[in-house]
Amino acid sequence: MRQAAAADLLVRERILDAGARLFAEHGYDPVSLRQICEAARVSKGAIYHYFASKEDLLAQIVISSLTALLDHVGRELTEAAGAGARLRRFIVSQAAFFEAQTPHFRVAMARFAQSGDAAQQEAIAALRRRYVRAVRTLITEGIAAGEFRDVDVAAATRMVLAILYWLARWYKEGGRATAVEIAGQHADLMLAGVWRR
Amino acid sequence: MRQAAAADLLVRERILDAGARLFAEHGYDPVSLRQICEAARVSKGAIYHYFASKEDLLAQIVISSLTALLDHVGRELTEAAGAGARLRRFIVSQAAFFEAQTPHFRVAMARFAQSGDAAQQEAIAALRRRYVRAVRTLITEGIAAGEFRDVDVAAATRMVLAILYWLARWYKEGGRATAVEIAGQHADLMLAGVWRR
Repeated sequence: MRQAAAADLLVRERILDAGARLFAEHGYDPVSLRQICEAARVSKGAIYHYFASKEDLLAQIVISSLTALLDHVGRELTEAAGAGARLRRFIVSQAAFFEAQTPHFRVAMARFAQSGDAAQQEAIAALRRRYVRAVRTLITEGIAAGEFRDVDVAAATRMVLAILYWLARWYKEGGRATAVEIAGQHADLMLAGVWRR
Repeated sequence: MRQAAAADLLVRERILDAGARLFAEHGYDPVSLRQICEAARVSKGAIYHYFASKEDLLAQIVISSLTALLDHVGRELTEAAGAGARLRRFIVSQAAFFEAQTPHFRVAMARFAQSGDAAQQEAIAALRRRYVRAVRTLITEGIAAGEFRDVDVAAATRMVLAILYWLARWYKEGGRATAVEIAGQHADLMLAGVWRR
């Protein structure tokens, strides 16, 4: 019984994974459920056991990926002390997650605004709020501690989002710098600025 | 004769404009040439007079938009003195262009990597190189002048791209801040950093 549940989980994961890879490579619209079946090596019946539709599969990819991202970043943050180090860790740990989960992360970033039914959209919106709140807290705490200037919190938050969206959209594996290296450079630039002190 | 040429130009512009609006709103794949004809109020024959295919129309939107963007930014840069002011102007003037040309800019940013035939792809790649070279030059000159720290030029260049991609992808009209205001905040953050000096 427990083995069957584990096998079930594997089938669901395999479908999520195949969907993420195909959506990340070709975009959402051109990919059919049949192609996802073939890539995951499951029957169409197996897909419909876990997912009501292609739209539902997309929403579940987005939700599982954002949840895993937030959990990962939350664990990483407990290990960093000081506002600058915590902000840097927040940005770099997402790049590490991105390197390990590239197709899922790309699909989540590209499609989170347009996925799923009303309940799924609300779940995605709640994850996004949790994410934005985490960034705002990092900035606000840094200002309160006197480590950061009295910057506009909304603007600094958008800057962190901009860094992460760039990675999700444009980073290519096999380039000169890894995603973690690029994210570290961006975090340092955001902290220290370009101007000579 | 000259009137006919002007009318021709208007028809072409109207088709480019309708295509940009529909692609920006719905994405490229779901939009048909028929919908573009209806939105531009032209016949399908008129579209094929200017564009070989939907793909060709997309590539022409991207090329015309990137060309106009670079020309606009180039004019703006001649009016700013000092590396910090020039970098700020580079970022903010693109936000102004974006506010005036939102659908074209969105389509250009979303699709420039995958548009057109080989010659068009080369034209787009050349425009992109010209753009990246302009950013690199701004950073390099700021370092040489002693106004900027000895930052990694590639990293600082990517940071500027990240700021602009964020705007193209996520900025929504009617929010609390205009695109120009957001871009100005991002430019200031990039220049001065978050850390207290």
